[in-house]
Order: sequence, then structure tokens, then C-alpha cells
Amino acid sequence: MDANRYRAVRAHTEALAAPLSAEDQSLQSMPDASPAKWHQAHTTWFFETLLLIPRLSGYRPFNPRFQYLFNSYYEALGPRHPRPQRGLLSRPGLDEVLAYRRHVDAAMQDLLGSAEARQDLTLASMVELGLQHEQQHQELLLTDILHAFSCNPLLPAYRTEAPRPGVEKPLRWLAHGGGEAQVGHAGAGFAFDNEGPRHTVLLQPFEIAERLVSCGDFADFIADGGYRRPGLWLSDGWALAQAQGWQHPAYWLAPGDPRAPSEQWQVFGLHGVQPLDPSAPVTQLSFYEAAAYAEWAGARLPTEFEWEAACALPDFAPCSDQAWQWTRSAYHPYPGFKPMAGAVGEYNGKFMVGQLVLRGGSLATPPGHARPSYRNFFPPAARWQFSGLRLAREIQ
Amino acid sequence: MDANRYRAVRAHTEALAAPLSAEDQSLQSMPDASPAKWHQAHTTWFFETLLLIPRLSGYRPFNPRFQYLFNSYYEALGPRHPRPQRGLLSRPGLDEVLAYRRHVDAAMQDLLGSAEARQDLTLASMVELGLQHEQQHQELLLTDILHAFSCNPLLPAYRTEAPRPGVEKPLRWLAHGGGEAQVGHAGAGFAFDNEGPRHTVLLQPFEIAERLVSCGDFADFIADGGYRRPGLWLSDGWALAQAQGWQHPAYWLAPGDPRAPSEQWQVFGLHGVQPLDPSAPVTQLSFYEAAAYAEWAGARLPTEFEWEAACALPDFAPCSDQAWQWTRSAYHPYPGFKPMAGAVGEYNGKFMVGQLVLRGGSLATPPGHARPSYRNFFPPAARWQFSGLRLAREIQ
Amino acid sequence: MDANRYRAVRAHTEALAAPLSAEDQSLQSMPDASPAKWHQAHTTWFFETLLLIPRLSGYRPFNPRFQYLFNSYYEALGPRHPRPQRGLLSRPGLDEVLAYRRHVDAAMQDLLGSAEARQDLTLASMVELGLQHEQQHQELLLTDILHAFSCNPLLPAYRTEAPRPGVEKPLRWLAHGGGEAQVGHAGAGFAFDNEGPRHTVLLQPFEIAERLVSCGDFADFIADGGYRRPGLWLSDGWALAQAQGWQHPAYWLAPGDPRAPSEQWQVFGLHGVQPLDPSAPVTQLSFYEAAAYAEWAGARLPTEFEWEAACALPDFAPCSDQAWQWTRSAYHPYPGFKPMAGAVGEYNGKFMVGQLVLRGGSLATPPGHARPSYRNFFPPAARWQFSGLRLAREIQ
Amino acid sequence: MDANRYRAVRAHTEALAAPLSAEDQSLQSMPDASPAKWHQAHTTWFFETLLLIPRLSGYRPFNPRFQYLFNSYYEALGPRHPRPQRGLLSRPGLDEVLAYRRHVDAAMQDLLGSAEARQDLTLASMVELGLQHEQQHQELLLTDILHAFSCNPLLPAYRTEAPRPGVEKPLRWLAHGGGEAQVGHAGAGFAFDNEGPRHTVLLQPFEIAERLVSCGDFADFIADGGYRRPGLWLSDGWALAQAQGWQHPAYWLAPGDPRAPSEQWQVFGLHGVQPLDPSAPVTQLSFYEAAAYAEWAGARLPTEFEWEAACALPDFAPCSDQAWQWTRSAYHPYPGFKPMAGAVGEYNGKFMVGQLVLRGGSLATPPGHARPSYRNFFPPAARWQFSGLRLAREIQ
Repeated sequence: MDANRYRAVRAHTEALAAPLSAEDQSLQSMPDASPAKWHQAHTTWFFETLLLIPRLSGYRPFNPRFQYLFNSYYEALGPRHPRPQRGLLSRPGLDEVLAYRRHVDAAMQDLLGSAEARQDLTLASMVELGLQHEQQHQELLLTDILHAFSCNPLLPAYRTEAPRPGVEKPLRWLAHGGGEAQVGHAGAGFAFDNEGPRHTVLLQPFEIAERLVSCGDFADFIADGGYRRPGLWLSDGWALAQAQGWQHPAYWLAPGDPRAPSEQWQVFGLHGVQPLDPSAPVTQLSFYEAAAYAEWAGARLPTEFEWEAACALPDFAPCSDQAWQWTRSAYHPYPGFKPMAGAVGEYNGKFMVGQLVLRGGSLATPPGHARPSYRNFFPPAARWQFSGLRLAREIQ
Repeated sequence: MDANRYRAVRAHTEALAAPLSAEDQSLQSMPDASPAKWHQAHTTWFFETLLLIPRLSGYRPFNPRFQYLFNSYYEALGPRHPRPQRGLLSRPGLDEVLAYRRHVDAAMQDLLGSAEARQDLTLASMVELGLQHEQQHQELLLTDILHAFSCNPLLPAYRTEAPRPGVEKPLRWLAHGGGEAQVGHAGAGFAFDNEGPRHTVLLQPFEIAERLVSCGDFADFIADGGYRRPGLWLSDGWALAQAQGWQHPAYWLAPGDPRAPSEQWQVFGLHGVQPLDPSAPVTQLSFYEAAAYAEWAGARLPTEFEWEAACALPDFAPCSDQAWQWTRSAYHPYPGFKPMAGAVGEYNGKFMVGQLVLRGGSLATPPGHARPSYRNFFPPAARWQFSGLRLAREIQ
Repeated sequence: MDANRYRAVRAHTEALAAPLSAEDQSLQSMPDASPAKWHQAHTTWFFETLLLIPRLSGYRPFNPRFQYLFNSYYEALGPRHPRPQRGLLSRPGLDEVLAYRRHVDAAMQDLLGSAEARQDLTLASMVELGLQHEQQHQELLLTDILHAFSCNPLLPAYRTEAPRPGVEKPLRWLAHGGGEAQVGHAGAGFAFDNEGPRHTVLLQPFEIAERLVSCGDFADFIADGGYRRPGLWLSDGWALAQAQGWQHPAYWLAPGDPRAPSEQWQVFGLHGVQPLDPSAPVTQLSFYEAAAYAEWAGARLPTEFEWEAACALPDFAPCSDQAWQWTRSAYHPYPGFKPMAGAVGEYNGKFMVGQLVLRGGSLATPPGHARPSYRNFFPPAARWQFSGLRLAREIQ
Repeated sequence: MDANRYRAVRAHTEALAAPLSAEDQSLQSMPDASPAKWHQAHTTWFFETLLLIPRLSGYRPFNPRFQYLFNSYYEALGPRHPRPQRGLLSRPGLDEVLAYRRHVDAAMQDLLGSAEARQDLTLASMVELGLQHEQQHQELLLTDILHAFSCNPLLPAYRTEAPRPGVEKPLRWLAHGGGEAQVGHAGAGFAFDNEGPRHTVLLQPFEIAERLVSCGDFADFIADGGYRRPGLWLSDGWALAQAQGWQHPAYWLAPGDPRAPSEQWQVFGLHGVQPLDPSAPVTQLSFYEAAAYAEWAGARLPTEFEWEAACALPDFAPCSDQAWQWTRSAYHPYPGFKPMAGAVGEYNGKFMVGQLVLRGGSLATPPGHARPSYRNFFPPAARWQFSGLRLAREIQ
């Protein structure tokens, strides 16, 4: 195991949190989101609980109460602080959480530097799991603070520099001939348990769009009454859209919005409020909105296996995109799926109902984290991720 | 189109409702369930709205307000009475609803008897759709009144005769070799749009149980702490079970239940409260309970395609069972799925997210209604259907 | 005790229920309201539980389960069916409830006819309490069915005859000189425990309106923006009105209401939908609406003691009015208040917080039931009673 | 107007907040409570909006968006940030809020120092209102942070020094002869509008306890089943206690509580978790718990007028106590009550329904803020104030 990689991933978390004040890092704007400070502590808890306590002899936990405070959802690891109340933990303060990180990092260096550690493959794979886990929380740290900032009428910006403008691209369709395809992770690198076992599926011929649906495309959908036509929507989506008064994506500001007066559409994001960029991919969509858009466009969402098979097409750029892409696939186990052994078996398998698979990766995904077989997943109503869509259709 | 079949299906609805008083038929015990009177009126509304008004010249609607009162969920057919308030409609009374049925039935006889009707294939298929629709409501009429009765501390019996005892059967596994399989509806008979297009899927070899999980099996699960061990459960299921205090299937009465004192487990059903029959299939399970049981049993649920492919096995009796069987398949569209044209396009497609497929049929399913390609569907938390499970597993 | 009076009160309940079908009598449209059938059973339960079981030797309860089903809120009398589920009791059916009434009535005749009964003053006072209790439920039977009917888009009429038109009257102020006043019940007749002890209060001089606020008055308030001006409202009232979108009294139909198209304001009541009668008292007001109206009118609500003292004024007609009148008095105990002994001690005292006193009586109050010291009470948000207001003000 | 007093009151707020980190000061643990930072900003907003903007020529608001962010409930002063989302405002940060305070304080010094200001009585009374308002928020700052800390399983202490032990005192009754009493504010000092007009009331003779109910008294109530006996409780209180599982006052820790293991009862307060002090007044009681205790003790709560009249008794120490005392009086207007003119008319009057009066003062009340005519008020379910009770009873 490479101690440099450990340090680099851990440092990246702290760099992402650096623009945020201690007050920012305490915010929890909904039960599904967590404070940045909590993300910093929980990822540290993971290493402490699953590596240091069982494997580093003489390790002294930083604070035994943190076992309770920073467990996320592992039933096998005992009771835990209720998720909706993570925003009430002003103590430990950010300073103490950072001290916790340093304490655990120092012990991890000891563990990684020991002679036996360098030989221990299960240790290496657990550390790698911890780092991949931390990378997932790096993305959530950004999406969660963005949601919190979206609830502040001042709409603060996480980044002060201006965003890169998108590049206008016509919609081009890539054809796939269907037939048998291998899906799931193969090879030596890291993958989550939910990416396997690799297996063969049978696909019909299909076409898939080379680029994602853009904000400009989506503005056309809105202008054409997309949010007012029930025939375009799945039943649950329409009911939710009506109940919550959806008229555009969650972070769009309609012309005249009192929080940032303008005559144009604007979009709130990591760069604060910006004029809508028609060529940028649309993000922060729920599955319901993505599916309604596809229906309106005379197309459909790809399945996760179509998406994965398309990765073999020459012009298909799977993970360089700026948004996760909703697929028309439920997040269910692959044939023969087995969760990891031990407490980490709760990592993925127990969430395999009620969610949909997203493929790709987003501008918030740490570089090198995603891959073609990567299965991200969220409930269909989720609107706070960098989630957009790519169209598919039958061969015409 | 056969007018006798029309009459027979319609009469069966009324026969099912016959043991119920007008008061019983007004009950709505939760938003997901509907009063028996409403089922009788809504199925009639379907014929009036989709057949008589557009096709029978000179037809006079029984009461124009019924268009609003008895539309279920068809957005294309205008606004409708809110679903959670169906139980507040003491007017029209049952007598008036029965008069509505007679009015529509008479007009339907005219329509079916006309010379052109006998040649009109789209008419015939719409009438058949209306009858299949009515058969679906026949099953719901029973499951809904059973739920309503389960909320009455007197636990009234729908049927007065004693239930047939089950037949004890050991668990036997049937092997399927996997490979390519054709799934979806084929042939000339009626099928819903969601059963097509027929297509080929690729299966791994698997084993499937010859019989359903029985009440005796499930009692063992309970006795072994099945409702107290989070490791057996999907995360959403465990959260719901804790929030609602589940300790056994919804209609089971633990020994000592004050509503019907006994030292034994008892089960409430259409025959009222009966001693638990260990050989009878367990029913009224949520998907979550079914999945937890399968995990406990060291097995899993079959996918809907495994289930359908198993129908070709000699000892597999698909639709003669007493319970729908939860599968490990989300209710999503088949490749190339197209909803029916017109308002009836809202029949199935718009519900294709957030639900799971059940296969088989139940003691409440009208004879001849189900078939191997039939896709029933409910949300994973549903506990008021005759829903149980059949185990599957990898080839050992 | 007069057995004729017993029979007359009981018969009046049945006469009030007579226009209602069994289905109508099962309706529960909100947790605060009860089905007419339940009112018929609960008032019977009162006599059975508090008189027949303890006092009539050899009495056999009609059905022991009814002790549980028809207890309203008496903790001392054991557990009871949850209030929000009273509408789910299709069994016992109306026929069985009427048989229950006959069974109890027959036994009550025995009890009342016995030699010792005629001497027994506590028996007589308990029977009278039971009859007064039944009269209270007679009024609730009407207000509850009216609420249930208001939830049916057909807006059925309880009575078929046309309502009596009101008589236009100018607003005339009656002056009271203030000073010491005796309040609370005095004399030999029946009164509830909450009407005593009689005591002296000190009043400032005030004026009180001779008539109630009329529908015409209230229409002026609406036209003048009464429902859009927060400055007129108490804070809780404004919050509720905004949350629920109040724009007029609950049973008023604005011009163009799709349930009963008209170009005029209409009002739904026991006579069904009728054109607004400007001279009729406005009813079905919450306290919040009554208080906002008074503020708009440059006046205020009277306290309950001002109201009671005004009964001595020559032109003040306390109980002949058509609506209960909200007062500016919380429903709290009088100095030295003692609840009745035994289980009936739960009758009034335990509700003495969170409610306001209404005085007067309504068109739904049984003749002879109300009196000047009578304290009706409801929470400030209640909008389904015949509740209106009478203005008061300081001496100008 | 005395500029020293202005500075002293403002400085006291900052001194109270000083032990709290920026993270602590951002906490909102329920919609009824507000972050300490918000209290600091809102009290500043009051001076800016009601004094500086209308009266100090050339005043430049610190940030025009703060008009929206820090308005509490004044409808006349425009829209405002939703109360339940005050905890989501990480921006402005604490530093910026403190800068806001300095900006406003400097301008207030200008205003107060001007020649005309020294003559301007309405200015002086508005400034005094602003200071009294700030003192009210000083108490809320403490009760709100204590509630927030009570939601943290670490149960942090606001103060590090040990609490003063109470002094054991037997319960002694003071007799009042009843008759006419003057109530309401009199004299030249400041009073809120709700303390007037002063008027005469008529009281029955009564006795009132010299001291408050102590923690030791209340522990006896618990040990005697006080939380399990519905007959002691008002109906709404019992329902709430059952729904929320109350078994002791909100901040008491039963023996064995995992947050602070001990074999004794402990109480959480500003000093953190401390062993229960039997002689200290019980606090953080709801009205419901106070009323149930009084019933159990064979006594009752005093009315607010009895309490105020008792202030004339030689041994009665009204405002030196450690807890506000629930009275048996609804918070309603006095006869002839008129709110203040202008926007500040929303200060007290619009809350005059649904709440009960508390009298006295607490350990969190700033010195000199309370007086015998002072009317504090909260809804009966409130459990996060320093609210206890003092018994009263009829003359034996």
C-alpha cells in the first residue's frame, strides 16, 4: 500500500473544505445531506474503526464517543447519532475534527509503514476501500454544501473564479449493434462489490447520444410546457412535481427571482449565480425530470448496460463528462452478487432497492475515481447531485 | 366480442360484493385502498367513458358528475376526485351505483349486439381490456375490504365457511440450466402492454423452489429473530420495520392478541381469524419481509425472468398458487416498450418506477386472469396483497 | 325521574338521524368529527356503562366489545377504539346499533320504573346528565354530518325544504354599565360542573351588539380584503389561514365554484347549497376569523362574562340565536371549580386548556338545552360548528 | 436617553454569547428556537429598522439584505426569512454579524448624542423598547443554546464553574384575603403594552406557596407514578406526553442514561450535567406537567392576578426566583388593551391566543428586566424555558 496515495487523498478532502468557514462546515440542510465537518470526521472514523482499532496494536482512539457520533449506517458497528441531527453537532468543533484527522493520519502512517503491512493484501484492500470511500464523500461534500448554500437567500459562491464556458455541440447519435456484451468490472484495479460479478447480457441494437442534454436543450423543454404536461411524466414524478411546485430544475433561477434580479435565466452552482450557459450540461435533475425530458425529446434513457456497452464505441467518452447520467435501470444486484465480508458488507448491498443507477461521473467526482463499470445510485426524487442525462433510442 | 363473457365478468364483481353491506362497501382504510362501492363504480366508468360515450350514438351518461367522481388516475380524461377521499362518498349510495351498473350494462349490450360491433376488432379489444381491468379490480376489491376489516377490532369474516387446510410439502428445488430464454407475451390471447415486446434474455443457471414459502417456514424465521436482525434486511426495509414496529406479517395475531385471545399464532384473512396453518403459503408480505426471509434462508428471490423461464420446467405450477410472488426485478419497461395509444396509454407505463414485479397469481385472482407473462407490481412496502415468495438460488 | 323525558330525548336523536342512510351514518370526515352511527352508539354506551351495569341487577350488556368500541375519552373506563378510526367501523352496522339502542332503552325503562329509582336523587341526576350528554351529541351529529357532506363534491342536502329567510336588522348597540356581576349557574335546574361555582366578577362598562354579525356584514369584510390583511389577524390565525389558503368561511362557495356554478356567493348548509342570505348570521367561523372580523369592524369580541351579564339587558336575546358566539375568554376553570366525582369527572375539566368559550346556542342546539350560563368550547381553529360572533366595544 | 444604558445592555448580549463558538452560535435545534448569532443580529436589526433608518439622516444600512434576513415576524415590515431556516445561515458569519452590531452601535451613539434626541421622548421610549427587546432575547439566547446543547449527545456545558447549591426550605403557605385588587402596570417606569391598562379585579381568598416546587418535590411526583396516571393530567397534556413518551422533565437524565452514566438522577443545564439538587426549583416544565403536579399535590396553579396580588404580601419574593411560574391564566388582552402604534404594535397583541401567562423571572432573566406586572407567555407544550411552578389553593 502506497502511503503517498493515502496522504494525497486525505489532503484533497481538506483542500475541498478549505474555502468553507467552520459555520459553513456545520450546515445540514436536509436529512439526506451531511455537514462538511461530518464528512471529514466520518471518513476518518472509517479508518479508525475498520483499520486502526482492529489492526494497530496499542492504538488509542481519539475520543471513544466518536464511535457513536460518526458511524453513518453500519448496524454491525453499534448504535449511531441520528442522521437528521448531524447539523446539531457544534461540538466537536471543526478544530477538534481536524485534530482527529491528524491523530488518525499519524496512526495510519504507522500502520502503513510497518513491515507486515507491506505484505498484507487484505490490509491494502481495506485501505484502498477507505480511500475510495473518502473520495465518494469528497463529491458529497461538494453537493451537500451546494444544497446548503442554495437554502441561503444570499446564495453564496463556493468558488470565486468564473466558470469555464461550455462548448456548443450538435446532438450526434452513436449506433450500437446490440448482441451479447460483457458488463461489470474486470481486471486488477479496485472496484466496489456492486460492480460484479462480471457477466454477459443481451442487448437490442440502439443509438446513444454522443453528448449530454444541455441547459439550452432543457430550456426548450421548459418553454414547450415540459413542467405542465402530465403525459410526459411518470406518475410518481408528476405527483411530486405538483406537490412541490416544480417549474424548472432545482437550482435554476427564473427571470425576476428576487434573490438575484435578472431578466435572464440563471443557474446557481459552485461558482454562485451565473447566467445560464446553453451549452453546459444540465445538472441537479431528478430521475423524474430526466425521464420527462427524454419522453418529450422522443427518446428514452439508456439502461445501465447499454451505457456500459457504449463505452466500447470510439466516440463515446464515458467519464470525462460533467454530470452523472440517470439510467433506466434500477439499482439491483448482479447475478451472483455477494457483498464484502464483515461490517463493510453493509456498504452497497443493503441499498439495492428503491434507487436508480447513474453512470459516468461529474465535475465533482475526484479524478481517477470513476470507471465504466462504476454504479452510482440515488432515489428518483434526488435533485441535489450533479445528475443529468444522455439520450438513447431504438435504431430508427 | 362475446356478450356472454361481458355479462359473466360483470356478474362476478357483484357476486364478490354480495356478502358486503352498503356500509362495508363504503370503507376506505388507507389512501392505497378503495371502497368496494368505488370499485364497482369505477369499472363501470371505464366502459362508459372509453366505449359508450365515444362509440354508442345517442348514449346518455347516467350522471355527468360521475366522470369526475370515478376517474381513477387518467390525466387525459380530466380532473378527478382525490384518491384519499373515496371513502367520504356516502352519496351516490350503493343502490345508485348498482343502478349505474345496470344502465351501463344495458347500453353495452346494445353496443355489443350491433352489426358493426361484431366486425370491429378495436372495439373487441377495448371491451376485453375493460373486462381484464374489471378482473384486476375484483382482486383489489377483496384485498381492500380485507384491509378495512383488519382495522376493525372485531375482525369480521368476509366468508363464513371454514378454509381448506393446506397440504404439507417438503421444499424441493427445480434446476434450470440458464442460457437464452424468450420472455414476454406471445400468441393470440389478451395481454397487457407491459408484457411486451417479447424478447430474449440471457440467464445464469439457477434453482427455484417448487412450492412457496409457507406460514410454518415463516414462523421459524420469526422464532429465529428474523424481525430483530438488521443484517438480514435491506436498509429501507429495516428502517420501515423499526418505525412501524413490525414483529410479524401484518395480518398475523401473536399469541395473546386482545382482539381474539388464544395461546397460538393466528392469521386474519377472508375467513376471519383462523389458527395458523403451517402448510399454507405465507401472504400479505411486503417485499422487504420477503427479501429478509430469503436472506435468512440462505437463498434469494428469483428475477422475473427466471420465474418466467421456470414456467417451462415440468414440475413448476406457475399460476395455480395461492399467492403472488415477489421477484427481485424492478417494474421497468421491456426493450422497445410502447404504451397503448390514447388515454389507456396511462394504464401501465406511467407506473414504471419505484415498484417491483410480482409473478404468479393468488387465491383472489379471478380464474383465467393470470398467465406466465403477467406482471403484477406493487411498491416494496405494500403489505395488504396476497403476496408471498418462492425461493431461488445459484446452482449449488 | 321522568321516563317520558328519557324517551323523548332518545327519540329526538333517532329523528335527527332518520334522513341519513346507513352509508351516511358511517362517515368520519376528520378525526374531530364522528359518524352519526357512532353518536347513536356512544350515547347509548353512556347509559349502559354509567347506569345499567352498576345499578340494574341482572343487566346483561348487549355486546361486551362495545365497551371498547364506544368509549369516547374516559381513561377511567379502560382503553378505547382510536378516535380517528371511528369511520372504519362498518360493523356493527346501523341495524345492530339501533338494536343496541332498543336493548338499552328497555333496560332503562326497567331501571327508571323501579320503586327505589323514583326516590334516588343521584340516579336521577345521572340520568339527566346522560340526557344532556345525548343532546350535546345531537348537535354534533348535525355539525359532523354537515362536515362530511361538505367533503363530497355533490354537496348533498340534509334537509330538502327551503331555509327560512333571515330578517334584515340594523346593528344596534346595547350598553351595560359594568360593575359587579354574578356569573355561573344558579338555581335548581341542571347545569354542567363547568358552569360553577357561581361567583362575582367585576366588569368595565361596555356595549354589546343586539344581533349577530350577518353574512352580509361578513361579505363586506371579504370585499374589503379581510382575508388578505395580516394586520387584522392574530398571529396563529394568519399562519393557519395562509397555510390552508382561506379566502372565505369554510362552507361558502365563491362565484364560479365548479361544484355548484353560480355568479353569486353561495353557502352550503343543512339545506344544501343556497344563495347567500345577507341577513342570516354568519356561521362555521373559526375564532381567528371572528376576531379578525371584529378588529376590522373597530370592535372586539365580548368576554364570556360580559356576554353573561348582558343577558340581564332587556333587549338581549341570549339563546334564541342561530349561532354560538365566540367570546374573548379561554375555557378555564372558575374559582373553586370541582369536577364531578367518579368517571364523569372527565366530562369537562380535563379539556380546560387550549380552547375558547362560545356562548348562546345555535339552530342545531336542541330546544331547552342551552342557558345563559352554558359554556360551549372549541379550539380556535374549529370551523365546522354553527359558530359566529356578536360584537362588543368599550363605551364610546 | 442614557447612552450608557444602551452600551451596557448591548455589551451584556455579547458577554452572554462569548463562551460560544461560531459553530455554537449557528445552531437552530427546533423552529421555536433561534441561533445565538441570529439573536445578536435580530436585536440589531430592531434598532436599525425602527430607529436609524427612519430617524438618523444619512444613515446607510449595513447590508440591505439584512432587512429580509433578520426580521422576525413583523408583517408590516415586509417579507422575511422563514423561521425554521434560521439555522441554515452560515453566511453572514459571526464576524460579519459582530461588525453589523458595531456599525449600528456607532450610528446609535450618533443618534443618542444629538441635541434633539435628548429632548425627544418618543425616541427615548423607542430606544428603551429596543433595549427591553434585547433583554428578552438575552434570555432566549440562553434557553435556545441550552436546547441545542441538549440535542448533542455530548451534552456540552455552557458554564464551566459549578452551580450554587439550593437551600432546603419547607413549603409554607401565605394567605391572601381576596377582594378587590389593582393589577397591571402603574407608575413611570417602562412596561410593555400587554401589562395595561391597569384595572381592578375581584379575587376570592386564597393561599399561595412561599417557595417554588423543587426538584425534590418533583422527584416524589415521578416516583408516585405522576407520568403514568392520566387522571392527574389535562387531556391535551396526556395525549402529548404519551405521543412523545414523557417520563420526566425534558432535561432530566434518568439513572443509567447512556449519555452520562450514573446511578442517580441528573439534570442537564447551563452548567452541563449535574446531580439532581433536591432543593433547586424544578425548571423546563411544560404547563401540562406543572398542572399535573399541582393536581397530584392537591393544589392548583395560581391565576396571574392572584400571583400579582400576592406580591403585596410581606414574605412573597416575586422576581428573585430562579424560574418563571406557569399560571392558570390564558394570555389574553386586559380590558381596554390597545397595542402600540405602528409596526411595533405587532409586538405583543397578535400573540394573545393559545398561550399561557408565566410570572416571576428566571436565572436567565437579565437583572432589572422583570417586575410584578410582567407577563411572560408560552404555549402549554413549551419545555425549553426556565419554567416551573408555585402552588396555590383555596383557603382550607
